[in-house]
Amino acid sequence: MDDFRSTAHRVADWIAEYLEHPDRYPVLPSVKPGEIRAALPDAAPRSGESFDAILADFERVVVPGLTHWNHPGFFAYFAISTSAPGVIAEFLSAALNQQAMLWRTSPAATELEEVALGWLRKLIGLPDAFEGVIYDTASISTLHALAAAREAGVPGVRESGLAGRNGIRGVRVYCGEHAHSSVDKAVILLGLGHSALRRIPADADFRMRPELLASAIVEDRAAGLLPIAVVATVGSTSSTSVDPVTPIANICARERVWLHVDAAYAGVAAMVPGCEWILEGADRADSLVTNPHKWLFTPFDLSVLYCRRMDIVRQAFSLTPEYLKTSEGDAGVKNLMDTGIQLGRRFRALKLWMILRHFGADGLRAHLAEHMRLARLFAAWVDDSDRFERVAPVPFSVVCFRLRARSNTPADEAAHARVLDEVNASGEVFLSHTKLDGRYVLRLAIGNINTEEKHVARAWELLNQAAT
Amino acid sequence: MDDFRSTAHRVADWIAEYLEHPDRYPVLPSVKPGEIRAALPDAAPRSGESFDAILADFERVVVPGLTHWNHPGFFAYFAISTSAPGVIAEFLSAALNQQAMLWRTSPAATELEEVALGWLRKLIGLPDAFEGVIYDTASISTLHALAAAREAGVPGVRESGLAGRNGIRGVRVYCGEHAHSSVDKAVILLGLGHSALRRIPADADFRMRPELLASAIVEDRAAGLLPIAVVATVGSTSSTSVDPVTPIANICARERVWLHVDAAYAGVAAMVPGCEWILEGADRADSLVTNPHKWLFTPFDLSVLYCRRMDIVRQAFSLTPEYLKTSEGDAGVKNLMDTGIQLGRRFRALKLWMILRHFGADGLRAHLAEHMRLARLFAAWVDDSDRFERVAPVPFSVVCFRLRARSNTPADEAAHARVLDEVNASGEVFLSHTKLDGRYVLRLAIGNINTEEKHVARAWELLNQAAT
Repeated sequence: MDDFRSTAHRVADWIAEYLEHPDRYPVLPSVKPGEIRAALPDAAPRSGESFDAILADFERVVVPGLTHWNHPGFFAYFAISTSAPGVIAEFLSAALNQQAMLWRTSPAATELEEVALGWLRKLIGLPDAFEGVIYDTASISTLHALAAAREAGVPGVRESGLAGRNGIRGVRVYCGEHAHSSVDKAVILLGLGHSALRRIPADADFRMRPELLASAIVEDRAAGLLPIAVVATVGSTSSTSVDPVTPIANICARERVWLHVDAAYAGVAAMVPGCEWILEGADRADSLVTNPHKWLFTPFDLSVLYCRRMDIVRQAFSLTPEYLKTSEGDAGVKNLMDTGIQLGRRFRALKLWMILRHFGADGLRAHLAEHMRLARLFAAWVDDSDRFERVAPVPFSVVCFRLRARSNTPADEAAHARVLDEVNASGEVFLSHTKLDGRYVLRLAIGNINTEEKHVARAWELLNQAAT
Repeated sequence: MDDFRSTAHRVADWIAEYLEHPDRYPVLPSVKPGEIRAALPDAAPRSGESFDAILADFERVVVPGLTHWNHPGFFAYFAISTSAPGVIAEFLSAALNQQAMLWRTSPAATELEEVALGWLRKLIGLPDAFEGVIYDTASISTLHALAAAREAGVPGVRESGLAGRNGIRGVRVYCGEHAHSSVDKAVILLGLGHSALRRIPADADFRMRPELLASAIVEDRAAGLLPIAVVATVGSTSSTSVDPVTPIANICARERVWLHVDAAYAGVAAMVPGCEWILEGADRADSLVTNPHKWLFTPFDLSVLYCRRMDIVRQAFSLTPEYLKTSEGDAGVKNLMDTGIQLGRRFRALKLWMILRHFGADGLRAHLAEHMRLARLFAAWVDDSDRFERVAPVPFSVVCFRLRARSNTPADEAAHARVLDEVNASGEVFLSHTKLDGRYVLRLAIGNINTEEKHVARAWELLNQAAT
């Protein structure tokens, strides 16, 4: 540990500089595929090297190959942010090296998770009946939700599985046309088969049509299939559309089917006064995922699954070998290993707890509200423009738009891709695209904590230049 | 970011102190269940709080609730360690906040993962044909291995699933009696059903008996079941026993069944000169998991899956929605999201790369060899003792032992539990237990980087005192 102290101070300064000047590097690096690999030896050194040498290579090789997610001009996918309290907490977490599989192996990580998730639950207005658990990603949260739905919906599945079962011809999971690919991956992983996922068509605003969900379930039951879950999306990835959760919840209640709400991106925004509508109906869901690492200034990774039936998650996964039995376990404490596939659990709660305290509820609300204001502002510029047109409502902080009066041809797609490549080549901004109704669409996603009005204005300027 | 810099320096000093005196706190905390939760408010603060206030509560509430995995007297489960380069790397990783789902979203994280995993692969002597990928935990690595085995073994499973398939009556996965519970959880999650896992009895040294594996497969095929995978364990959790991989590989080759090697704990030790035997036969496996966060001084979490057929993993999981399509993707770069269930990927490679460089191959080898020497030393003390007897071979750094000449009765179990509770109450050491052949067994697991001979000697002293 001789040189840990001096290195840690040196790195603290480097990070402080980095976070104070998040725009000092281009958003997208200019490296070519294979360049970073080629710049490094093909075997580990035999003798240990100094931190000086390692950090020199870090600056020489790694930094030029980073995509700067902290850049205020990062407008791609969902823009995310690290934050001062998040970095401090992860620094501590790496040093403490808690492995919170059992209460005994980290009482602090186990109980702080409960505390921080209770705080977040209240902020977004979910009832007490929802118990929370922290996973790494929304992919894993949704996987657990659908595993629980399978446990609840397919009798004996834990013991007997799905193959060769009398009376189980096929299982069905439903989601909207615009649901995230993690739903597909979960259905595949769970052994239901990709064909078990039925995507329900959307309305003109990209929202699942509940009447089509209702008829799909009836049709599938008539065909001898077993509907087990519906995934409603609150803030879809392409357009941030919001499925009508209340009518969907009514259908799920009537049909006795698990309702999972994917609010990975938008859920946290329900804490903003006036935005309580975001989770309307979600109190009736069986489970809901929201990701503090998406839009709550939490360094990646930290996804939260709230579940009204966590006993079913435990029933699906709990399994205690002798070497993990403890007297506290017998006394009914919570052991995080029981809520999921991963035995080991990192001390992620520390960062969420520090972030909630450092910003305070009002601080977080102010950042989220400002992001939504900036998105509405940008949307207004688009609406007033001769060059661009908006193609989706803007309920949150993402704007979908395209060149005006263009048809849906390969040439049109190439024209859009050219605009995108040109603005991204500036190094000042990074936008990504999607397709809606088969048409190539540009997306401006606001979510980075460093993004101000001037950055959004600059993106607009660059887009207009590129479109000329 | 005003106070980030000063806070980071303050925390750097705190961590340096902490890592320099890993024994300043008792290994196991004395908190009672619920105490930490009760010491904190039940809602987030409305206004933001200062780092002073947050860090004061960190010291007041969190630290007394930590189990000190860094303590040199941590001998429970598998003892793990953080390390100076690991902490530095995680500090940087939290600040950079890379989300390496696509090459484009972090060329550095994507290619450094390839570099670091190439280095580690060479160190442990696996052939080039093994491609590596970093996941969070061995549970997830093994899940992916078995998902790939299912993809390879069950035609059309990705699209059509397992239910209601003509000709698929049931699937079988095999592992030894002493395989880890993550195999059970993976089989359950994959929809195979827990009953699809057939545990093959072990010999007197807790190793899977290959001849019984061979006959089990024949028997199951005759019963119309479909064998898809065998999990061989190299370093089982209870006793660190090593399944005979070469004869198992012969059977898998003959039966055309996927061979996954669980070397989560012991695999890295194959880099020690004279320990090449550890992965003997593993070069013929289809996949192998080893965890740098277990015994390679890497802060939790970082598990590595090496796979000779990563194309099958990709075939099982690759799925690119429009909004994640990139021109580099078309050009054949590696996108980490294609190798698994998790779309988002944290920049974990940075720590492995820094650790391999900081220690160098010889530094790592020296630590591992010393841990194995200490385990042999402790085993010799047990063997010479009147009070204790050893109950399993010691191939690595874990010793299994029990009170001499005791029968297998509830009173016997209570006597052992009393010894364990007494030594653990000292605050100087933390040991855990298991059961072997139905008998309660104490385990001393060496793996923490701070552990020296004096700590092992002190554990022995405390055990002897407690046994009197």
